[in-house]
Amino acid sequence: MRLHLNENTAGCSPAVLETLRRLGRSDAGFYPDYDAARAAVARHFRVQDDNVLLTNGLDEGILAAIGAAFRERSINVPETLGVMPAFDMYEVLTTALGGRMVTLPLGRDFAFDPKAFAAARTPATRIAFLANPHNPSGRFEPIHTFLEIALAIAPVILFLDEAYADFCAESAIDAGILSSHPNLIIGRTFSKAYGLAGLRAGAVIGRSESLDPLRKVVPPYSLNAWATAALPAALKDDDYRAWYCAQAATSRAMIAATCATLGLETWPSVANFALVRVGPSATDVVRELAARGVTVRDRSKEPGCEGCIRITAGVVEETRRAVAALTEVICAGR
Amino acid sequence: MRLHLNENTAGCSPAVLETLRRLGRSDAGFYPDYDAARAAVARHFRVQDDNVLLTNGLDEGILAAIGAAFRERSINVPETLGVMPAFDMYEVLTTALGGRMVTLPLGRDFAFDPKAFAAARTPATRIAFLANPHNPSGRFEPIHTFLEIALAIAPVILFLDEAYADFCAESAIDAGILSSHPNLIIGRTFSKAYGLAGLRAGAVIGRSESLDPLRKVVPPYSLNAWATAALPAALKDDDYRAWYCAQAATSRAMIAATCATLGLETWPSVANFALVRVGPSATDVVRELAARGVTVRDRSKEPGCEGCIRITAGVVEETRRAVAALTEVICAGR
Repeated sequence: MRLHLNENTAGCSPAVLETLRRLGRSDAGFYPDYDAARAAVARHFRVQDDNVLLTNGLDEGILAAIGAAFRERSINVPETLGVMPAFDMYEVLTTALGGRMVTLPLGRDFAFDPKAFAAARTPATRIAFLANPHNPSGRFEPIHTFLEIALAIAPVILFLDEAYADFCAESAIDAGILSSHPNLIIGRTFSKAYGLAGLRAGAVIGRSESLDPLRKVVPPYSLNAWATAALPAALKDDDYRAWYCAQAATSRAMIAATCATLGLETWPSVANFALVRVGPSATDVVRELAARGVTVRDRSKEPGCEGCIRITAGVVEETRRAVAALTEVICAGR
Repeated sequence: MRLHLNENTAGCSPAVLETLRRLGRSDAGFYPDYDAARAAVARHFRVQDDNVLLTNGLDEGILAAIGAAFRERSINVPETLGVMPAFDMYEVLTTALGGRMVTLPLGRDFAFDPKAFAAARTPATRIAFLANPHNPSGRFEPIHTFLEIALAIAPVILFLDEAYADFCAESAIDAGILSSHPNLIIGRTFSKAYGLAGLRAGAVIGRSESLDPLRKVVPPYSLNAWATAALPAALKDDDYRAWYCAQAATSRAMIAATCATLGLETWPSVANFALVRVGPSATDVVRELAARGVTVRDRSKEPGCEGCIRITAGVVEETRRAVAALTEVICAGR
């Protein structure tokens, strides 16, 4: 069981697969057309088509945002501002493009301090990354926190990563907000709730002018024809998304209950994963779980995540087996 | 008829489509695994797996190469060296990442002057792009020309774009050359001869250490699961590639014969397209062809391509209709 990458392990909606099976040889041979997919995404988020930049997974959106932010080269080492712990691609891609990641530790229970964050901006700061819900804790912060940060650090870009926002149904995406906060861009992915990780489909949402520098970095045909066909079908099948989000909610509750029984620390998550502090033997626990066929993510080496593993909270039946395995491993170690 | 993007308008091999139709919901839901696709590409080019960086179309390889080359920021405006005319993405992506494209005009009949090219290198040059066969002329230069350039401009990276090399069956890819020329990296695409443009599958081939900076720029899951499944199937069906390459050869001859009859200048192409000088009314000719259902590429505004259109030379039956339409349009204008 792959519970380490927060995929939808049930896969995509059956309606998506049906759509994909209708594609033919010429869909493979021709460069893909984005119009229908972009329009479907815009409709979904209730914004205009030109507020949407489709990306080959959200990773490409992060890359494009950093590439665009680092374009102006008067400063030798441009900086990306973020928090620790966080999704690792912000730092990986910052470094790959010659910048430096500056991170602030989060507080107790991964509490975020907006004032300290805004104050950490330096003249070299070109872009800031924050995620809501936060990864790997699953913690949710009220949307206004990020709007305040965007205002405080302008004109530095705030890239708000909402990769897991489908699971809490709250988002900063709003036509009014986009125009009042030109330095706010919002990243979304269809890899998680919609089960399209293997198809690579993400989007960056923002004011059209704010997306222009990113558009130049993203090659003209970056989603493939199967991804562009999948997107409208996936968005149309809202029952499937709702089913998986409900599975995730139940799974989170099961993990929380197991942690309470076992006396393990965990945190209230609104996403499709949970962080669990299993203690100094975290790496052994990960290995023992793997031996039982359950792959989870070892986050124990990251500052703020000492002793922690991250478990995908998706399909309930899989979670049932995962918490049984976790219980077995933890009890055997006592 | 789409004869403006040099796609394989027959689409992918039937074997590829059959492979894709076997993919299921979990292939959509899980992040793709590259190992089999990378191994198939390495085997195809007779290099090791770590000489291969798979990219989401060759565009992503070009982006990664420029991003990596521009990583070191001691120079304010890094330069990309190339020739004119050329594929436009070298300049688009150079500019998007804050650099400047410096181009040398080609000589009569698109002749390439290696000495002048090497001498055009400045202290700000970070990467050079050359294509063989050349686009849009289809001209082929002997491989040793590029090896000499690589030596002359080292340690500046020479990105040799072999997007159309399948059509002439000659390539600089060779295990010995890769290790003796560490600054040479070679771009390939499966969009053209293999008919995978809609699936987005390209590769950059080079010494493993030379690819490392590019690997950091390319996000970990950039090809999607349908592309990784298609690649081994496409490479296995060599009859299909051979069929399309033969169609392209016949089509090139048909276009050349038509040009001879009509007294239009054209150039010996080894690729799946031909450049044709139709004269000052090129834009009208493109429009007239479009009115007859034949889309070709207007290159007439580019230096060195004055009065020229580019026609994809692919499926023979389509070429037959295209040259008939071209004949009609040219004769009507006389």
